[in-house]
Amino acid sequence: MRILIIGATGTIGSAVRSELALRHEIISAGRNGADISVDITSPESITTMYQAVGKVDAVISTTGSAYFGSLLELTPENNEIAIQSKLKGQVNLVLLGLNHVNDRGSFTLTTGIIMDDPILGGVSSAMAGGAIRGFVQSAAIEMPRGIRINNVSPNVVVESMEKYGPYFPGFEPVSASRVAQAFRKSVEGAQTGQTYTVY
Amino acid sequence: MRILIIGATGTIGSAVRSELALRHEIISAGRNGADISVDITSPESITTMYQAVGKVDAVISTTGSAYFGSLLELTPENNEIAIQSKLKGQVNLVLLGLNHVNDRGSFTLTTGIIMDDPILGGVSSAMAGGAIRGFVQSAAIEMPRGIRINNVSPNVVVESMEKYGPYFPGFEPVSASRVAQAFRKSVEGAQTGQTYTVY
Ligand SMILES: NC(=O)c1ccc[n+]([C@@H]2O[C@H](COP(=O)([O-])OP(=O)(O)OC[C@H]3O[C@@H](n4cnc5c(N)ncnc54)[C@H](OP(=O)(O)O)[C@@H]3O)[C@@H](O)[C@H]2O)c1
Ligand SMILES: NC(=O)c1ccc[n+]([C@@H]2O[C@H](COP(=O)([O-])OP(=O)(O)OC[C@H]3O[C@@H](n4cnc5c(N)ncnc54)[C@H](OP(=O)(O)O)[C@@H]3O)[C@@H](O)[C@H]2O)c1
Repeated sequence: MRILIIGATGTIGSAVRSELALRHEIISAGRNGADISVDITSPESITTMYQAVGKVDAVISTTGSAYFGSLLELTPENNEIAIQSKLKGQVNLVLLGLNHVNDRGSFTLTTGIIMDDPILGGVSSAMAGGAIRGFVQSAAIEMPRGIRINNVSPNVVVESMEKYGPYFPGFEPVSASRVAQAFRKSVEGAQTGQTYTVY
Repeated sequence: MRILIIGATGTIGSAVRSELALRHEIISAGRNGADISVDITSPESITTMYQAVGKVDAVISTTGSAYFGSLLELTPENNEIAIQSKLKGQVNLVLLGLNHVNDRGSFTLTTGIIMDDPILGGVSSAMAGGAIRGFVQSAAIEMPRGIRINNVSPNVVVESMEKYGPYFPGFEPVSASRVAQAFRKSVEGAQTGQTYTVY
């Protein structure tokens, strides 16, 4: 398959890329240092990316930012980061990408454990994750031409413990390579509307 | 208690109002014909509303719009309706209202069955509902001064069957008065972080 991975240079994205590159052609996208430059917070940028890439069999998003911090410091303004990136960025990859995915192709988006198992500081990210799960489950029943859509919800990954560890006391980190298997299941399997939890 | 209901003139809001008015002081808010005028899509309008209302013991939102229509017609632009209203409107009622709610007070937001049980045309609304559920569950663990937060997820209500019936084939409508009981449970009870499904 021809697979577009947005966020392929990141911690999770690079593990997904390594796993899928064994069997598929990978096109990477991101703001810097990828095959194609894209900023998912801009619908125009997403459209330009799809025009440059042409048809693909699978679109994977392993990206999405959010403000982490206390609820008392969460404002309509900093909550916008998650809305523009993790939420609308990923949703728009689907809405604007539908015509660029081949029949029986797939979309796979990324959510995260904190939408199920809240942590201090994670409100905005949990909100966006919940939105993506709701979107995926509903979009699945309306996808044209046998196109499928799923999301992968990783626990904190071992490779990110230095960065995120203090936010996840008592969580049991999972390896990025294990998370990559859930993306493989979504792309190479036949299910749709699923949330693959890697907890 | 002193209870602010945003959307009190609506189908669900008026049932919630009738139920709670038996035991509490109600202040209604909405764009037209309520005690206080507010447009939840504007953070400034929300702030002005709270300043006018003063301290309350409970804030209830029974409002939130969304585009209903085929996934193939869902665009970044019409998806914005749900994001501005159902999603950010309700979230901002909490973020901007925290200082206006008394100790051990509560927020109760509205979601809906289609975030769990998808219907054709409901993608945008399901996305917003999922976001509100994720937000509520996470915000609950960070609320100051014993303030609680829940959401009520109604099935399609009997009183709306003329308007929404065709979207919900085979769903068993519930009465608005039954939905109102879930709001009562949230306001008068002691639980937090819950999704009260009225299915
Ligand atoms: N790491 C974890 O433990 C963990 C656990 C659960 C969920 N998640 C979620 O998984 C996703 C990826 O996490 P990660 O740790 O792998 O992140 P990461 O290492 O920071 O990588 C993010 C990737 O996305 C790209 N990116 C960032 N902003 C972008 C934008 N606006 N447009 C296009 N590409 C953009 C980055 O490349 P450029 O900077 O060049 O654009 C990079 O390739 C995030 O949504 C995160 O919340 C992570
Ligand atoms: N009805 C159902 O069967 C059903 C089932 C599940 C979930 N829900 C959800 O429950 C919520 C309420 O539904 P409903 O049927 O009761 O709606 P409704 O009858 O249309 O009432 C909506 C209420 O919200 C107010 N409102 C609308 N936009 C507003 C804004 N931007 N700012 C402030 N107030 C606003 C309206 O008053 P103004 O127009 O004067 O502002 C009205 O009081 C919606 O989120 C809906 O999706 C409904």
